Amino acid sequence: MSHSFRITYQIRVAPGEELEKKLRDICVEQSVEMPLDVVPDNLVNEVVGRVASYEPIRDRVWRAKIDWPIANTGMEIAQFINILYGNISMKHGIRILDVDWSALKDLLPGPRLGISGLREKWSIPVRPLSCTALKPMGSTPEELGRLSYEFAMGGIDIIKDDHGLANQSYAFFEDRVKACVKAVDEANQQTGQKHFYFPNITGDPYQTLTRYRKAAELGADGVLLIPQICGLTTMPKLRNEIDSLPIMAHPSFSGNYIIHPNEGFTPACYYGGLWRVMGADFVIYANEDGRFSFSRNDCLLLNDYCRRPISGYAACFPTPGGGINRNKMDKWLSLYGKDTVYLIGGSLYQHPDGIRRASTELTTLLKSDPD
Amino acid sequence: MSHSFRITYQIRVAPGEELEKKLRDICVEQSVEMPLDVVPDNLVNEVVGRVASYEPIRDRVWRAKIDWPIANTGMEIAQFINILYGNISMKHGIRILDVDWSALKDLLPGPRLGISGLREKWSIPVRPLSCTALKPMGSTPEELGRLSYEFAMGGIDIIKDDHGLANQSYAFFEDRVKACVKAVDEANQQTGQKHFYFPNITGDPYQTLTRYRKAAELGADGVLLIPQICGLTTMPKLRNEIDSLPIMAHPSFSGNYIIHPNEGFTPACYYGGLWRVMGADFVIYANEDGRFSFSRNDCLLLNDYCRRPISGYAACFPTPGGGINRNKMDKWLSLYGKDTVYLIGGSLYQHPDGIRRASTELTTLLKSDPD
Repeated sequence: MSHSFRITYQIRVAPGEELEKKLRDICVEQSVEMPLDVVPDNLVNEVVGRVASYEPIRDRVWRAKIDWPIANTGMEIAQFINILYGNISMKHGIRILDVDWSALKDLLPGPRLGISGLREKWSIPVRPLSCTALKPMGSTPEELGRLSYEFAMGGIDIIKDDHGLANQSYAFFEDRVKACVKAVDEANQQTGQKHFYFPNITGDPYQTLTRYRKAAELGADGVLLIPQICGLTTMPKLRNEIDSLPIMAHPSFSGNYIIHPNEGFTPACYYGGLWRVMGADFVIYANEDGRFSFSRNDCLLLNDYCRRPISGYAACFPTPGGGINRNKMDKWLSLYGKDTVYLIGGSLYQHPDGIRRASTELTTLLKSDPD
Repeated sequence: MSHSFRITYQIRVAPGEELEKKLRDICVEQSVEMPLDVVPDNLVNEVVGRVASYEPIRDRVWRAKIDWPIANTGMEIAQFINILYGNISMKHGIRILDVDWSALKDLLPGPRLGISGLREKWSIPVRPLSCTALKPMGSTPEELGRLSYEFAMGGIDIIKDDHGLANQSYAFFEDRVKACVKAVDEANQQTGQKHFYFPNITGDPYQTLTRYRKAAELGADGVLLIPQICGLTTMPKLRNEIDSLPIMAHPSFSGNYIIHPNEGFTPACYYGGLWRVMGADFVIYANEDGRFSFSRNDCLLLNDYCRRPISGYAACFPTPGGGINRNKMDKWLSLYGKDTVYLIGGSLYQHPDGIRRASTELTTLLKSDPD
């Protein structure tokens, strides 16, 4: 099996289960998916996965590596996902820890620009970036435009739609994008700085592609995407569009893949690995200390994975949100450092002197962050 | 809130958590997603979810109903998914039990044909249907064609691709479809019966749509789709195509939404509810007693949900697989009855006298099933 890729699993063996049988079952389930006694010998050799190694992690929990023929993917990302975690998603005790992404470079494109490409394109030196969300759902395009202007005047780098702003009559997609692009442009002219607007383009995959192109046409600087809703395999398609806009990926609807310790994926491998190689320039994750279920250790590992050198792939910006309070920035800066986008929503809106003032305080701090 | 839809949740309250606060948090998280003290009063009234009722199920576990404005969906399915289970997928202790689908009929199309429509179109009286899968991955189009012919000669109603047959060089999509359509046509002419071939069309959403149209053009009778991989919102798009083919939905990559008792969805609501209203004519589920993690109770509830009368929606065929042995058909028939498609793979291949003989035995039994 010369052309293969390797997946690393965490295997939890239930009472009465046998590790080696569980591994053999994975090798079959994710390939020929039938009893081996009726599979022709040549296909057993060419197509079935092969256990490369296993070692204990702790009582009843193992780390195991299986090699898969790249030819089984047919060089299509959808079928890769199927091999990675298709039918085994219905079994207990199997979690994906890592994938040898470098072996899949011809299949999985990675971020088009990523951290260094975006810093160069946007002329932003090595410093932490700020991001905020336009809210709430129900606001009109005019109100969202006004908010965009205030945030930009306060120096926020990236102003994105809340992920719940879709195409509601409150603020239809095109009306909203036009209003926010115009507002950010005005602020840019007044400040002499560049601020960036990312509309949410999530719809069904066909609407999403249309909105991606429309966002570029209307002058947006990037897009917000919910991969798990518009279709995970939509993201690499957008990333490979000519003149594509940077993609910020939002974790809505994806939590079930990462919140259980014995199934799914580690948050690091899912967001910092899979979503990065699928083309995300930014991956939003739910920060510790917020409304969600993430531990500090998970967050640090995820943050690190986004920037881990992987042969052939640009790094992507880890973008913690959902638990970033403007009053605790020192803590987050020391935890995550400069190659991170800090997504701060609610606490900016709550500043007693308004969002422009709140934004100015935040961005002054980020731009002055000492080495 | 006159135009609203209702979602029923199971809420598990962790030690230190308070039920009413957890419900209020859901109402906010899945709508305005920001602190209510900075949301304008009119939007609190118009946009935020409203708790309708709650009642205890058992210690620390509650059943709660929340009403949501339909306008929040913008009449787009992607945004409906976001409201249904977007950010809360990252929280523990929230599970979807049911949705008032009838209120969403203008948004969610349901099966195009469903059980009664397919029986009429295919002239199949009320009896159990048989289905099998072409395997293994690695086979050539000629080999798959030969298998199709044998299964059809044995009387199998629906012959589908294994869900791992994508577009690999082993058997490219078009070559495979042509070979299998031709083989099934030949058998149909010889038997005077009708047998149906469903190729797997799963790719990225754009490939999937192209293959859907190509499958129809090449004479396939329906398609196999992996909604969670090609994009959940791809399915209703296909269902609404002119002259669309019946859709059989496969659960690969979806297990994490249903295998944990306190998060995600019940299998019944996910497959029999959500996938049905999204347009599946058949939903495959992992049968009890097989390789997967489903209990008998889960299977019975799911099977029932597929056929439950829901105003405005056709019923879809429950299609148990992955644990249906040809030697235990009496058990499954008495459990699931006649409005079920029995998907039998491996055990047909293992019959000592070959797959045609195995298929004949099975289909003779199914066609003779007494009232």
